[in-house]
Amino acid sequence: MSEALVIRKLKAGAPEFDRQLEELLSWEGVSSKEVQNSVDEIIHQVRQEGDQALLALTQKFDRHPAESFAELEISQDQLREAFESLAPARRDALKAAAERITRYHEKQQQESWQYREADGTLLGQQIMPLDRVGVYVPGGKAAYPSSVLMNVLPAKVAGVKEIIMVAPAPEGELNPLVLGAAWLAGATRMFALGGAQAVAALAYGTESVPAVDKIVGPGNIFVATAKRAVFGKVGIDMIAGPSEILVVCDGQTNPDWIAMDLFSQAEHDEDAQSIFVTWDPAYLEQVEASIQRLLPTMERAEIIRTSLQERGALITVASEQEALEMINRIAPEHLELSVEDPQKWLPEIRHAGAIFMGRYTAEAVGDYCAGPNHVLPTSGTARFSSPLGVYDFQKRSSLIFCSPEGASELGKIAGELADGESLTAHARSARYRVKD
Amino acid sequence: MSEALVIRKLKAGAPEFDRQLEELLSWEGVSSKEVQNSVDEIIHQVRQEGDQALLALTQKFDRHPAESFAELEISQDQLREAFESLAPARRDALKAAAERITRYHEKQQQESWQYREADGTLLGQQIMPLDRVGVYVPGGKAAYPSSVLMNVLPAKVAGVKEIIMVAPAPEGELNPLVLGAAWLAGATRMFALGGAQAVAALAYGTESVPAVDKIVGPGNIFVATAKRAVFGKVGIDMIAGPSEILVVCDGQTNPDWIAMDLFSQAEHDEDAQSIFVTWDPAYLEQVEASIQRLLPTMERAEIIRTSLQERGALITVASEQEALEMINRIAPEHLELSVEDPQKWLPEIRHAGAIFMGRYTAEAVGDYCAGPNHVLPTSGTARFSSPLGVYDFQKRSSLIFCSPEGASELGKIAGELADGESLTAHARSARYRVKD
Repeated sequence: MSEALVIRKLKAGAPEFDRQLEELLSWEGVSSKEVQNSVDEIIHQVRQEGDQALLALTQKFDRHPAESFAELEISQDQLREAFESLAPARRDALKAAAERITRYHEKQQQESWQYREADGTLLGQQIMPLDRVGVYVPGGKAAYPSSVLMNVLPAKVAGVKEIIMVAPAPEGELNPLVLGAAWLAGATRMFALGGAQAVAALAYGTESVPAVDKIVGPGNIFVATAKRAVFGKVGIDMIAGPSEILVVCDGQTNPDWIAMDLFSQAEHDEDAQSIFVTWDPAYLEQVEASIQRLLPTMERAEIIRTSLQERGALITVASEQEALEMINRIAPEHLELSVEDPQKWLPEIRHAGAIFMGRYTAEAVGDYCAGPNHVLPTSGTARFSSPLGVYDFQKRSSLIFCSPEGASELGKIAGELADGESLTAHARSARYRVKD
Repeated sequence: MSEALVIRKLKAGAPEFDRQLEELLSWEGVSSKEVQNSVDEIIHQVRQEGDQALLALTQKFDRHPAESFAELEISQDQLREAFESLAPARRDALKAAAERITRYHEKQQQESWQYREADGTLLGQQIMPLDRVGVYVPGGKAAYPSSVLMNVLPAKVAGVKEIIMVAPAPEGELNPLVLGAAWLAGATRMFALGGAQAVAALAYGTESVPAVDKIVGPGNIFVATAKRAVFGKVGIDMIAGPSEILVVCDGQTNPDWIAMDLFSQAEHDEDAQSIFVTWDPAYLEQVEASIQRLLPTMERAEIIRTSLQERGALITVASEQEALEMINRIAPEHLELSVEDPQKWLPEIRHAGAIFMGRYTAEAVGDYCAGPNHVLPTSGTARFSSPLGVYDFQKRSSLIFCSPEGASELGKIAGELADGESLTAHARSARYRVKD
């Protein structure tokens, strides 16, 4: 434990830097052929045999003692009892978090709109919630009640009426915090199911599990592979890679704080990534010293050590401008801007899942209770995707209502373009509405 | 040609109806193992050999006469010349369509927002465009300039700076209407590439083709399979199935109009689906008579015949209410509400890609120039997805900026919840910011 940690230190602009950074960031969540075949087989089995396949697979993979499928459904009473069994301080913390998360997500509500053109033609967009969604909650060693809140509450705010939660119960055991959070957040049904079989059940439905319209929530490689396979039949959120943080500091924050913020990411698992960037080389040394001093005091020291050694980095850049370039290049899931005036940085930040601004904003408060979602785009996917939000549980329908005059004018244009595409039924259908 | 068409007539509520409807709607766009393996191999080749692989594959699959990769890039001058070579009436129609599509999509702009809590903590959401997107435009028999407008313009409105378009050029031939539309819409670069190799090039980049952040646009089974494979490395839009329409009529519209609207969907290809619903059995007979009478007059009569026989249906329901239930059950890509007061139906319609309201609104005007996008969720995926829009080319970053007071309060809650998850670095990181 007292052995010094070796964490890579890089200097932007050095001859090998670009290659080193690319290696550091490279992550490909490819499923092996074996995993793919096994997932395909499980999906096939669940589609063919429904509940019976689910029961058999759950007995096998989760060593669940259930003897009938009915035992795998967790009733609302069980959820409520789990919530009520929690220590009051923890229950209050969960409630405070749920309230803040709800309040933030309410700001993401989208409104339907319509407008009318001069000739009376009406155009618009109607927003509706999804009917039914599935939320996958991982079980096993790390069961996170915060993930329950972060996945269920946005669906609730969006107006989704049925929220079906699944979580594996190894040996039949479920975490009461997870059950309590499910009750607090308002999951409408819950099943003790996990792995590819849970995803297959949600996507295709069985006698007991209703088919949903979209599946969200993180999971292991089997869950991720199953989600990719059922994408199209149902909607899915992103397929998440390991969690990562980029902390940028101007050298004026207590270095222990920075070290602990890096640890809080690294403690998730060995693949998690913590990167630190500063333009103050002396300060970088201070942060490293804090890391070395604090590491042995951590409960998950070995996970943190492996994560920092294998995937972490301390990077010196030449200037604030170069730090900005680094941010946009990395497109981090979590970005901590531990700087004097973080607001001024915002317009230049093109890619980041969540931005934690100023010295007082630890990423950990965002994980639990600040309000914004902690389900964020990983592995550079912030280049094209967003935090989980209310918008993920709603969809739009375009509205077109032509007045007779509008239909006549548009019919001429459409007819001309349909001729160009040799689609004559299109042309005639449009021209039927053209006035003589 | 004069042989009568046999189109299935169903009656909602009849004993076999549920099963018949399910069969009618079932569509699984599954790729065979052969297609998957071939796509995997092509992606691997493009990642390994870049431009050289692209050139070889394009020579092979498209029988393109190019002798160097450089010949596969279409210059901006070539695009402009193509536009200028178009007949004035067609050019004007394209321009009018582009203008209307732009105006509608501008209403989809999303604004960044921030709000401050009582203790000074700031929360918000920042919206940014994607840096670079790829637009796939199918070539071959059906080359659609309208698809170019519908895919490129929302990206433009979103603020995307680089829009890379690809379209296969069989025998080296490209459609001047497609090139002209690309110039009008503002594609920034274009390559004569198609198939899985084009998707691989856009996802991973080569010496000449820049890697993009998201790939949109329809394509054949190879393109769809490649998009599914690269999903996660880049964003993708939906994987589209065959196009379909549901026309609902109260019996007061000219039946020829309805027949032609059904044809305009059916003429796309043999797999396209046209379904008609009414609660007026006598009117259903009139529509069928129009279909039989008009079919022989159509240029694409054979495609329409096959589509209507294999995938079409005329359905009688008992009431308006049952028609509404049918709509939500089918979740059609295109919904035509050829009824007296379509506005009154809207609040009950939960699932539809685009809603064409009233007797004058032919779906064909929506395909070309009404304004809303014609890239719509197919095969019931309107249950969980939306028309292509400006929102597909933007993403969000969450903002959290704690005041010292806010950090102290939130730190206590986060600490309590982190204890519950046994994440001690999270707890300490949050508690560092708690005031004594």
